[in-house]
Amino acid sequence: MLLNERVLQPRIGTTTESREPDVVDEDHPVIIAGFGQFGSVIGRFLRGHGVDSTVLEFDSDHVDLLRKLGLKVFYGDAARHDLLEAAGAGRAKLLILAVGEHARTVEIVRAVQKHFPQLKILARAAGRWEAYELRDAGVEAVYRDTLDTALRLAVDALTTLGHRSYQMHRAAKTFRRHDEASVRTLGAMRHDAKQYFTAARQQIQDLEELLSAGAQDAERQDSGWDTESLIQEFGRTATGRSP
Amino acid sequence: MLLNERVLQPRIGTTTESREPDVVDEDHPVIIAGFGQFGSVIGRFLRGHGVDSTVLEFDSDHVDLLRKLGLKVFYGDAARHDLLEAAGAGRAKLLILAVGEHARTVEIVRAVQKHFPQLKILARAAGRWEAYELRDAGVEAVYRDTLDTALRLAVDALTTLGHRSYQMHRAAKTFRRHDEASVRTLGAMRHDAKQYFTAARQQIQDLEELLSAGAQDAERQDSGWDTESLIQEFGRTATGRSP
Repeated sequence: MLLNERVLQPRIGTTTESREPDVVDEDHPVIIAGFGQFGSVIGRFLRGHGVDSTVLEFDSDHVDLLRKLGLKVFYGDAARHDLLEAAGAGRAKLLILAVGEHARTVEIVRAVQKHFPQLKILARAAGRWEAYELRDAGVEAVYRDTLDTALRLAVDALTTLGHRSYQMHRAAKTFRRHDEASVRTLGAMRHDAKQYFTAARQQIQDLEELLSAGAQDAERQDSGWDTESLIQEFGRTATGRSP
Repeated sequence: MLLNERVLQPRIGTTTESREPDVVDEDHPVIIAGFGQFGSVIGRFLRGHGVDSTVLEFDSDHVDLLRKLGLKVFYGDAARHDLLEAAGAGRAKLLILAVGEHARTVEIVRAVQKHFPQLKILARAAGRWEAYELRDAGVEAVYRDTLDTALRLAVDALTTLGHRSYQMHRAAKTFRRHDEASVRTLGAMRHDAKQYFTAARQQIQDLEELLSAGAQDAERQDSGWDTESLIQEFGRTATGRSP
């Protein structure tokens, strides 16, 4: 968000349970629960593409501040069946769970699955463990908070060191696909520590080899087409050094 | 990370300041400080491309667990000049700050700028406010924790609703570029609340219009080339409805 997040930490401040939920007077294809940094990026992106969302936020101070920024937000608990109903959960297509607290996310998932089973859920998770639990609860589309930003930093680091930007972006996709798959396989064995650790080590190693193989492939494929390496090659031959 | 992150929250557990830092016996082009979920994604991605990193982690329990997973990590405080020196900060090219605590990140930045000013820093930040501070401290490359994952969720949401995947990815880039630029401009005026809020509102509105214009452009450009819309058009004409 565009605010001083220190002032805006959820549930800090004068938030009280006694404030009545707002009356939702909207009916949109998307409902977003949680409108901190994560949710507001999504809401703004959708809005820029002409898709309106009904936004529910549980922190009353945050609601007030968002309104100062010109954003329309309703105060209320998205785990409440009546509020979901009022927000149009019976007619919406997507529910985006951008709440920062895992326990609340799980609560909302349960309420939605009970009362609005047709509603597709896209949910954020702090990390791998929360992702396991959300998948167990039946949510297919889980987005781990820092995964994509960490990958972008890694891509930039390697590009700075001279790796090709295009190859790095492709490798980041491979990493994410493999890592997402490991959430599914490792999640199932996480209650057996020994089995889990063995499998986790294997996954780490497999992914390293996969990336490494991809990098070598890309190098081979490029070598015939890449002007820079042709010039190098040419230069090398011209100076009499063997290739 | 591949572990139960509840067990692995930094600085929880038996971590004590009394443990001696490990002796670093490596010299790599990249140093990574902090090897939780964020840092380990980066370290693994780099390693898959043949780039080794010297990893410093401040939580001793976490160090022990990472070793169980087969990852090489050194225990120690990256804000300490002697430890940075031992980790090869004088010869490394990049320092990646993947520490979760903002105050420690700033501490390390100060130590590095004083003793190793040639070292390029790529740093994570929890949010916009931390990003402002890191930029003020002279760090150009700042990565906000959840920005990229939130954008990916937003892209998937719109794709689910029928928007084109390619266009959405392009729009996500536009969003990020604009949002990063706003970190620079808004950061400078954040100490004047009135000016800040006015500018923030304007930034939100500008970005919405920018995305909206991009979406319309894409639609116009596509309409001549896109088989699906041609079929629709054809169908429409065939059924006698006006276009």
